[in-house]
Amino acid sequence: MTHGGNIYRFADQISCMPEQVLDFSANINPEQALDWHDLQLSLTPYADPEYGALKQALHQRYCVPAIKADSELFNGASAAIFALLTHLKPKQLVFYTPVYAEYERIAQQLACQVHTIDRFGQFTEAELPKHSTVIFVNPATPDGTCYEMTELLARWQQANCTIIIDESFLDFCYADSVIPNLAHIKNLYVIKSLSKFYGCAGIRIGFVSSEASLIQKLKEQESAWKLSSFDMAYMQAALANSTFIEHTRYQTRQWRELLHSTLEQSGLFDRIYPGQANFLLARLAKSDGNSLQQHLAKARILIRICDTFAGLDQRYVRFAVKDAQAIETLGKSLRNV
Amino acid sequence: MTHGGNIYRFADQISCMPEQVLDFSANINPEQALDWHDLQLSLTPYADPEYGALKQALHQRYCVPAIKADSELFNGASAAIFALLTHLKPKQLVFYTPVYAEYERIAQQLACQVHTIDRFGQFTEAELPKHSTVIFVNPATPDGTCYEMTELLARWQQANCTIIIDESFLDFCYADSVIPNLAHIKNLYVIKSLSKFYGCAGIRIGFVSSEASLIQKLKEQESAWKLSSFDMAYMQAALANSTFIEHTRYQTRQWRELLHSTLEQSGLFDRIYPGQANFLLARLAKSDGNSLQQHLAKARILIRICDTFAGLDQRYVRFAVKDAQAIETLGKSLRNV
Repeated sequence: MTHGGNIYRFADQISCMPEQVLDFSANINPEQALDWHDLQLSLTPYADPEYGALKQALHQRYCVPAIKADSELFNGASAAIFALLTHLKPKQLVFYTPVYAEYERIAQQLACQVHTIDRFGQFTEAELPKHSTVIFVNPATPDGTCYEMTELLARWQQANCTIIIDESFLDFCYADSVIPNLAHIKNLYVIKSLSKFYGCAGIRIGFVSSEASLIQKLKEQESAWKLSSFDMAYMQAALANSTFIEHTRYQTRQWRELLHSTLEQSGLFDRIYPGQANFLLARLAKSDGNSLQQHLAKARILIRICDTFAGLDQRYVRFAVKDAQAIETLGKSLRNV
Repeated sequence: MTHGGNIYRFADQISCMPEQVLDFSANINPEQALDWHDLQLSLTPYADPEYGALKQALHQRYCVPAIKADSELFNGASAAIFALLTHLKPKQLVFYTPVYAEYERIAQQLACQVHTIDRFGQFTEAELPKHSTVIFVNPATPDGTCYEMTELLARWQQANCTIIIDESFLDFCYADSVIPNLAHIKNLYVIKSLSKFYGCAGIRIGFVSSEASLIQKLKEQESAWKLSSFDMAYMQAALANSTFIEHTRYQTRQWRELLHSTLEQSGLFDRIYPGQANFLLARLAKSDGNSLQQHLAKARILIRICDTFAGLDQRYVRFAVKDAQAIETLGKSLRNV
């Protein structure tokens, strides 16, 4: 698995039901903005092929500049990444590593030339190929570092880059989106997942925002009626719940601090990264991720080993921020290692 | 609109709510196999990326030959058509016209050379380019003719064609699928929509079945986690309702006969095609489809004018088979033309 762990395969391996797995491997908010049973919708008709109402709600929520910018909706952020890169067919891709392995897989498939820049070094001054396509995930995964983007954007613009910013975890942070910049920066694309923040990986809606004419071109490559009517109704209702935003940010910070101290107190790690999102990256002092994973599996706990991220090895493990009870269960298991 | 009419645009034009439109333009079963409120699922986790349980239910329902054949699931049949043709990149496409305009749109986008064969003529003996890719919709739209496929399949095989059969409306007919042939015919693909038969255009699941190694290649081009967890749970429950199949076939035939006699009694048509699916094609004797559409709009009835199907003009209109009450309302409006 290059993504969050597969709870179905894991459940099969440890002989339990998937819903019994305590999944610290997928970075999904444990809380939801609504109860789906309360939704009102009919599944019979075709949905509005323009996704008008949902797009309006998204543009309002994320301050997408009117007229100048537009968005295309996809069946989740993975589908958005795939469609955008397939459409752009970049000759030269710049990755700031470590980076989500899905990006590398697509780059390989499209036979792009890949240039990597290590985010853990003095990367802001790194050499940058002119006219390349830059991919930057903010906050970054798997470490959760949240970057101030102004200087980076200016640098990429100077090198005439096409810029792709993945802000799938930004809603968890007290930080600004680059979306308002779509009004004045050319060849800038912003990708967003909604599943993580809204706690619904089963709802498949993600989007790409960019200059209106670029979105029009991207849209021409897409088939009609991609999105589930139920998923659209769910996301529209979720986006309307504005108190959920502040609540989630506050709650995530509380639980992240609890997770941090739990990891620290276990004494197993020689480094815990100061992540700002809904997950924490930690480096094991002595053992490797596989033996920790095997130990935690006894308590049906699944974690993410980060050796699929370029630059990291099996000592690096990532933990999603879950609720206090789940963190306590994790803590107990870590104490018994 | 090249597909069923857009009820949202129509509702906007006639100043009503989309749910007030009596939609005879989209061929959707007016009945459903279940009430979605009864579903049990969690939206929080990522779904099984292999769609294992749903695929198993589909393979059982449609008798997909085990081991030799396999399927890839898509966000509806439109997405499946688009992905399959983009993947196959056929140099020469053979359409049996009239054909669903979406196929022509994709052929144009992929710059395929298109060879058309008129289904309304003596088409079984028509010349066939060797090694071409044939697309055949059975039962055909917009006329609903249901074909016996054995001879056609043999002919296409003789010409070494890649064969794509779209069986999106076959479940409504008392006829055999070509799916069992996947065990012994090479380069055969079968596309199926589930929305039409199961009365849920808002659920976005369609699939392509073919030889296992060909499906593997198709799958490599696809992004992960495309399908909505809700849609998957819905379709799995719908597929389990086996009494719905016979009931729908019987009910559709009853209502289709009622629709046929209603159209006949209106005296407006000089030809009503003997369709076997859940829609009927009729040719206006004197007026054209636009004026009929305008007249019916007063009763919030939307119909499909078939001039976007190659070979047909504005005199051809298509009516979906709806329930007795809807057909009665249509009949009243037709009497007042």
